[in-house]
Amino acid sequence: MSTAPLRIISGSASSRLAGAVGNHLGVGSNGCVLQRFPDGELCPIVENVCGTDVYVVQSTAPPVNEHIIELLLLLNACRRARAARVTAVIPYFGYARQDRRTAPGQAIGSAVVTDAIANAGADRLVVVDPHTLGLEARCRIPVETLTAVPIVACELATELADDTVVVAPDLGAVELAEHYAMAVRGSVAMVRKHRESGTTVSALELMGDARGHLAVIVDDMITTGATIEAAVKLLRARGSTSDIVVAATHGLFVHAAASRLRDLGLRRVLVTDTVEHENTTTMIRVCSIASVLAEAIAGLHTDQPLLEPRIPAR
Amino acid sequence: MSTAPLRIISGSASSRLAGAVGNHLGVGSNGCVLQRFPDGELCPIVENVCGTDVYVVQSTAPPVNEHIIELLLLLNACRRARAARVTAVIPYFGYARQDRRTAPGQAIGSAVVTDAIANAGADRLVVVDPHTLGLEARCRIPVETLTAVPIVACELATELADDTVVVAPDLGAVELAEHYAMAVRGSVAMVRKHRESGTTVSALELMGDARGHLAVIVDDMITTGATIEAAVKLLRARGSTSDIVVAATHGLFVHAAASRLRDLGLRRVLVTDTVEHENTTTMIRVCSIASVLAEAIAGLHTDQPLLEPRIPAR
Amino acid sequence: MSTAPLRIISGSASSRLAGAVGNHLGVGSNGCVLQRFPDGELCPIVENVCGTDVYVVQSTAPPVNEHIIELLLLLNACRRARAARVTAVIPYFGYARQDRRTAPGQAIGSAVVTDAIANAGADRLVVVDPHTLGLEARCRIPVETLTAVPIVACELATELADDTVVVAPDLGAVELAEHYAMAVRGSVAMVRKHRESGTTVSALELMGDARGHLAVIVDDMITTGATIEAAVKLLRARGSTSDIVVAATHGLFVHAAASRLRDLGLRRVLVTDTVEHENTTTMIRVCSIASVLAEAIAGLHTDQPLLEPRIPAR
Amino acid sequence: MSTAPLRIISGSASSRLAGAVGNHLGVGSNGCVLQRFPDGELCPIVENVCGTDVYVVQSTAPPVNEHIIELLLLLNACRRARAARVTAVIPYFGYARQDRRTAPGQAIGSAVVTDAIANAGADRLVVVDPHTLGLEARCRIPVETLTAVPIVACELATELADDTVVVAPDLGAVELAEHYAMAVRGSVAMVRKHRESGTTVSALELMGDARGHLAVIVDDMITTGATIEAAVKLLRARGSTSDIVVAATHGLFVHAAASRLRDLGLRRVLVTDTVEHENTTTMIRVCSIASVLAEAIAGLHTDQPLLEPRIPAR
Amino acid sequence: MSTAPLRIISGSASSRLAGAVGNHLGVGSNGCVLQRFPDGELCPIVENVCGTDVYVVQSTAPPVNEHIIELLLLLNACRRARAARVTAVIPYFGYARQDRRTAPGQAIGSAVVTDAIANAGADRLVVVDPHTLGLEARCRIPVETLTAVPIVACELATELADDTVVVAPDLGAVELAEHYAMAVRGSVAMVRKHRESGTTVSALELMGDARGHLAVIVDDMITTGATIEAAVKLLRARGSTSDIVVAATHGLFVHAAASRLRDLGLRRVLVTDTVEHENTTTMIRVCSIASVLAEAIAGLHTDQPLLEPRIPAR
Amino acid sequence: MSTAPLRIISGSASSRLAGAVGNHLGVGSNGCVLQRFPDGELCPIVENVCGTDVYVVQSTAPPVNEHIIELLLLLNACRRARAARVTAVIPYFGYARQDRRTAPGQAIGSAVVTDAIANAGADRLVVVDPHTLGLEARCRIPVETLTAVPIVACELATELADDTVVVAPDLGAVELAEHYAMAVRGSVAMVRKHRESGTTVSALELMGDARGHLAVIVDDMITTGATIEAAVKLLRARGSTSDIVVAATHGLFVHAAASRLRDLGLRRVLVTDTVEHENTTTMIRVCSIASVLAEAIAGLHTDQPLLEPRIPAR
Repeated sequence: MSTAPLRIISGSASSRLAGAVGNHLGVGSNGCVLQRFPDGELCPIVENVCGTDVYVVQSTAPPVNEHIIELLLLLNACRRARAARVTAVIPYFGYARQDRRTAPGQAIGSAVVTDAIANAGADRLVVVDPHTLGLEARCRIPVETLTAVPIVACELATELADDTVVVAPDLGAVELAEHYAMAVRGSVAMVRKHRESGTTVSALELMGDARGHLAVIVDDMITTGATIEAAVKLLRARGSTSDIVVAATHGLFVHAAASRLRDLGLRRVLVTDTVEHENTTTMIRVCSIASVLAEAIAGLHTDQPLLEPRIPAR
Repeated sequence: MSTAPLRIISGSASSRLAGAVGNHLGVGSNGCVLQRFPDGELCPIVENVCGTDVYVVQSTAPPVNEHIIELLLLLNACRRARAARVTAVIPYFGYARQDRRTAPGQAIGSAVVTDAIANAGADRLVVVDPHTLGLEARCRIPVETLTAVPIVACELATELADDTVVVAPDLGAVELAEHYAMAVRGSVAMVRKHRESGTTVSALELMGDARGHLAVIVDDMITTGATIEAAVKLLRARGSTSDIVVAATHGLFVHAAASRLRDLGLRRVLVTDTVEHENTTTMIRVCSIASVLAEAIAGLHTDQPLLEPRIPAR
Repeated sequence: MSTAPLRIISGSASSRLAGAVGNHLGVGSNGCVLQRFPDGELCPIVENVCGTDVYVVQSTAPPVNEHIIELLLLLNACRRARAARVTAVIPYFGYARQDRRTAPGQAIGSAVVTDAIANAGADRLVVVDPHTLGLEARCRIPVETLTAVPIVACELATELADDTVVVAPDLGAVELAEHYAMAVRGSVAMVRKHRESGTTVSALELMGDARGHLAVIVDDMITTGATIEAAVKLLRARGSTSDIVVAATHGLFVHAAASRLRDLGLRRVLVTDTVEHENTTTMIRVCSIASVLAEAIAGLHTDQPLLEPRIPAR
Repeated sequence: MSTAPLRIISGSASSRLAGAVGNHLGVGSNGCVLQRFPDGELCPIVENVCGTDVYVVQSTAPPVNEHIIELLLLLNACRRARAARVTAVIPYFGYARQDRRTAPGQAIGSAVVTDAIANAGADRLVVVDPHTLGLEARCRIPVETLTAVPIVACELATELADDTVVVAPDLGAVELAEHYAMAVRGSVAMVRKHRESGTTVSALELMGDARGHLAVIVDDMITTGATIEAAVKLLRARGSTSDIVVAATHGLFVHAAASRLRDLGLRRVLVTDTVEHENTTTMIRVCSIASVLAEAIAGLHTDQPLLEPRIPAR
Repeated sequence: MSTAPLRIISGSASSRLAGAVGNHLGVGSNGCVLQRFPDGELCPIVENVCGTDVYVVQSTAPPVNEHIIELLLLLNACRRARAARVTAVIPYFGYARQDRRTAPGQAIGSAVVTDAIANAGADRLVVVDPHTLGLEARCRIPVETLTAVPIVACELATELADDTVVVAPDLGAVELAEHYAMAVRGSVAMVRKHRESGTTVSALELMGDARGHLAVIVDDMITTGATIEAAVKLLRARGSTSDIVVAATHGLFVHAAASRLRDLGLRRVLVTDTVEHENTTTMIRVCSIASVLAEAIAGLHTDQPLLEPRIPAR
Repeated sequence: MSTAPLRIISGSASSRLAGAVGNHLGVGSNGCVLQRFPDGELCPIVENVCGTDVYVVQSTAPPVNEHIIELLLLLNACRRARAARVTAVIPYFGYARQDRRTAPGQAIGSAVVTDAIANAGADRLVVVDPHTLGLEARCRIPVETLTAVPIVACELATELADDTVVVAPDLGAVELAEHYAMAVRGSVAMVRKHRESGTTVSALELMGDARGHLAVIVDDMITTGATIEAAVKLLRARGSTSDIVVAATHGLFVHAAASRLRDLGLRRVLVTDTVEHENTTTMIRVCSIASVLAEAIAGLHTDQPLLEPRIPAR
């Protein structure tokens, strides 16, 4: 297999990231021609993939459904063009949260999407900090799970003083917070919903002390910013007067997330380029995971094991 | 199988049509709750489908990719809710034109979509006047192909005089035109691209005489209206001064199709409700295929053969 | 489907439970003949399943590998005997913890087992309080997830005073603890591993106050009892002098778990019969989930939705 | 993949063609031993395919069912002998016309055959001028569609004068005719069934003028010759006195096709060797597609894209 | 399932047998219309199978490849016509002997055929005295194996005296011979190839004494009659002067089998109608297995277990 | 494919044999780490298999169910670690005897196991003298069947005099006996169950004369030794006073097989190391098939055909 040339195909959701990955690998990124018909049907055309080891880089970020269909068509185009091997590289994997039915009558969106990806033509799947690690078990094709935590933590180090507290904004983020705390040599605090005995009233509770420390709130993704906002307000209410930094792998920033975060007086919001944005504010800093993807693709291309540290999903 | 109760689930692309189908069948249409998260992920919830014979009615009209993903989630939700049988009813089937690779490096979109539909949970598929009849052969699940031609032709009869000529606006529509001609007792003319011998210059050519007759231009679908416009202009250039009517099953009317058609001075544009629109002009008349779908679903539900006449696809 | 008669087949791991389920449903349990050849090969023979709606009840409790193979053979025997529908009911699902690779070179055991179950002949799967809810997403057949929490909590009520604190012995049990706390009107405390800032030394930390309250330590399963032992010792070290009760759905009690728990001076250990034991001590009380399974099977047999409350997995 | 040696296996329907292809490629054709038991069961044995990149060349020409079963056994033999890659090369693909149900109760023969081919062991499929391009969409394995039009047109050029008219004998052959017209710098005429308005009487109609020109009637295949005969008679009836040439990719010549064509006084019938015949008349000239197949196989073997022009199927 | 009406579809290889089965069941046999195009392609059309429980009766007797393709098309037609359940009833199953590779480079014909049958649309398979019982294990769909031995033995009883010896003409027929011997209260003798120690010379050897007894040579099938002829000659050479009767389930009688058997001076040759012949001699008596098939189909249709005795395959 | 490095992974059932195979091939055997949790769940970890051509060597000898699950996990671990190709090498294949249903209500164990092996991740399967050759036909992945007969026969030659008789202890072993007889230049005798005419009484019968010869009883496997014991007693009862040797590929020796054989006064029992034992008596001699496996793996790794003689299964 290793004699097949390496090709990077960039989907429209990750064209800049794919370009950077290609630069890292010294192969460039082969933009596909994405034709869009007047009625919205997509018709991507891939070039020069015959006999190659192809990596299709496409986040399924918003508009998520458009990007999923484009990804399926790209994978199918590679398969039918007789690529030697097709790997879907999905930096941000949408629908990962739909990994179980929480009410009768629901679909399991992550299963629908992963099945469609494998059936369209992918031999392997690469994801970055997915919301659930169940993705790996539920795919019949091999999956490699990468993490942006070391990259983000390294960037964080330039922002931090000695006595930082890493705050998990909810129960599901505690494991992630512990990994960040290891990396930045901080302690961990967590926000959790507290249910008073015998009642249905719930309130946010801060477990651990964050007063007097610079606080870093960490999560896998920022969508509307509501979870972050609640955590910030709780920290302030509990007496924290220090600066607050927010760090996450995936910055979706939908609705008014950016302005909501700006209004919170945060010192910094750190995210990666798994989701691409046209304009970002100075407060929001983006560190690229291109090197992480490039290293992983190099290993996959040459059939090497990946040495990435494994960070538990939420 | 026949003891399972009948359920109609309406997707968001066909809610009015599904409602009308439910009324025909006397069961109502069970709107599903379609939750849409801020980041654009869909989460439909179906109700009361356990043990039932479910028909999910959803055109994959524009926005086509949104509607495809919604359809997949609906089918999967029905499957996981233990529906006895799940039938996807897709009045307008998007991506049907991508049924072959016309250039190296393309996907075959219709194959990607039909595979995803079967894998998401559909046991059977129902389509109306698909752009290609290859859909049936390429599905591993049974497919029933319905047609709107009798409904539309019946409506046409109220518009027509005795000496009508049915015009196929291109080669692919000739078979369709012949079926319409049979129904309205008219003759057939066709527009085709003519390549001059030894050159690459092409021009539209009208085969058959349309002068002095009311002309009905027929096609399976109207997208931007460009094909219709070219046919109308050719008819006029060839001396036709009579009224012109346009009829098609699927009225997508994307871009400025509606105003483009209005500017042509047509007497009438007849389409069906396989594609739903908020506002239609008085020139555009919509006849419903609800009765066609209702009759087919009744036959499918009671395991009867369908008696629909078969109209060849384009 | 609903006209097929109901059959309960009991595997050797759950013969008493299956018998109780059959009694609840008034159909008895059809013990299969389980032949075991001298070389250890199993040869189960099922009777009277032709044309029936079969529920094979078999926990994959220790000896887990024996019980998995027996289950696969039972499912295959039902399929080949032309059962109308085959449902695997697995009260305790082994290998559920192997739902992701935590080191390179591992298998994903839960995926191997669920695939084998579906391929051997199961149409549907029923599990009780699985260690991971990812089971549902990773199965291509419909899965119903039941919970024993209400049954156990009801039994707990007879043991409890007013001011009970429910203790999660680790982070993964917090959601479970909150459900128990709701049921018994108690508060929640949790044990977590604390990593001191800047070091790798870890220690157990008790978050929340348990002094002066009767404490109920809850988990989904008790294997060697080591996690419970650590939690009990931490409670005592933090000054708790009240009685301690332990509750879990699955009581595997491997190695010296029973004596280890006895030495802790617990007031009571409550588990269910998802795992069957020959002898239990007076301290260990077993409440049966037969009624939970019977109600679910009745719903599945008659194609009704299940009304079980959903308890998040660990 | 590209390091696996190239092997050509010739089925009994295409032994001469496969030999010619092997000569082109300089590898010879490895005839398999085809044992036929007294009861008609076939037992082909392939040699030296272990670890090789195998191309099984077998038209499914009459006796079509015999040749299909032989092909399936050949593909399976290659798969079980651990060939590195197996490509079915089917110059004439039988059952291609059964690509849709034209009446209730029919099978879709092309789907049955393509499924069986993929399941027997083919990784890829190569066809030449199939009756329907739907073949590609309906296969789950990659398909390459070749065309004999340039080869046949080149041969035609030696027969033609300047002012040739290319005649499509029915609607489905018009696109093909246009490609031939481009190649031989001729104009296009077409035969179509004309339905008189309001009646069911049909008659053949010649659209375009063929008088005074040498006429070339083109089609994808000649079976009984009836379609050709009707076109010739129509041309004569419409006043054509010039010579008539017939060209098609596949010359099946079943029943009395050869004598029927001879009686028409044609100047020449040009076909290729996709279908092999023992004896051909002097009127029937066969041009070989061996070079087309050899070039395609060379590209497939070295994982190159194919540069064949794409000719639409009927 | 049991509410779906019963339908018998007869393939062209078993039309009389299917008719007799239909008569037994009181439903008639619904002959399908078998169109055969001039080029040999088959196009069967099934009627009235929508929603029914269909049994397609078709032996894959010579011409075996024709009959296999016809069977696949029939099954596919039933599936696409939305039959509720499709069962392939194959009284004589061709290619059963190709159940292993006996030389490198062979296919496994039985696997190719059973896969194609399941993929074309069969839910279940019924066979009669197949040459190998491996058929059952190798099918992913449930298989029922019937036997004609009791029917044939009952007919034999009218031919036999008290002291009959049942002769297995080779090693593979010994188990069959023992079942016949049980049924007709005879003893068993066997013919085997004897290899002289240290040499490669082989000769036929008769194990057991057949002198003075009426001998019944039994086998599962008679193809060319060569095996029978060798056994008869050995019996004569070993001094048997009594009458000899031959019995087998499947009488293929290919090549000059009928005249070869006639020349042996046999008293009687008993076969069943799993293979249909136009003309049979008076020496060859055919007993029908229609009742065996009818009873099995009745059980399958009503989801009952089959009570057939199981006879080991060769 | 051939550029991928060769790796031998040894399962716990065949660690010594795998080590010997690795030595033969000069690559060593890469023992996997087999973690066993207190509750009996297995968690093997494979190392350095990424991009390699892996051969997992694991007999499914007793404890058969443990070894099957371990094998499935090993195969899955290799697949998910992105091995280039995974071959399951199963020297002794358990559940091979369950290759058909001998009573209604049984599973087909061999089908369950082979399906699970393919689904867990094996691309190919290698077995040695399986109880049934149906294994090959029933696998959808390519299977290579090896034999230990030449190795065992070579070892036998050192034990034998000139006039040896090879005894098949039952009908199923006759073909095997003939292969041994060819190899050691002996004659063949067989034991068979004899049913007296008209009664159900059965007795063992010796066909062929063994008196005055050294007798070698051969079978594919020795389980409890009961079949061997019966054959020995029959030989003695029929007057054999010479030494008796027993030879088989697989020596399972379950229950008191070893002492039972010892009590029979046999000169020698020859088996191979397809099943590993801690202690063997001096009477039981083990000859290794490591060279047979090594030669086969070398051929598989380099994509060569295997030159093994084919010995029919029982």
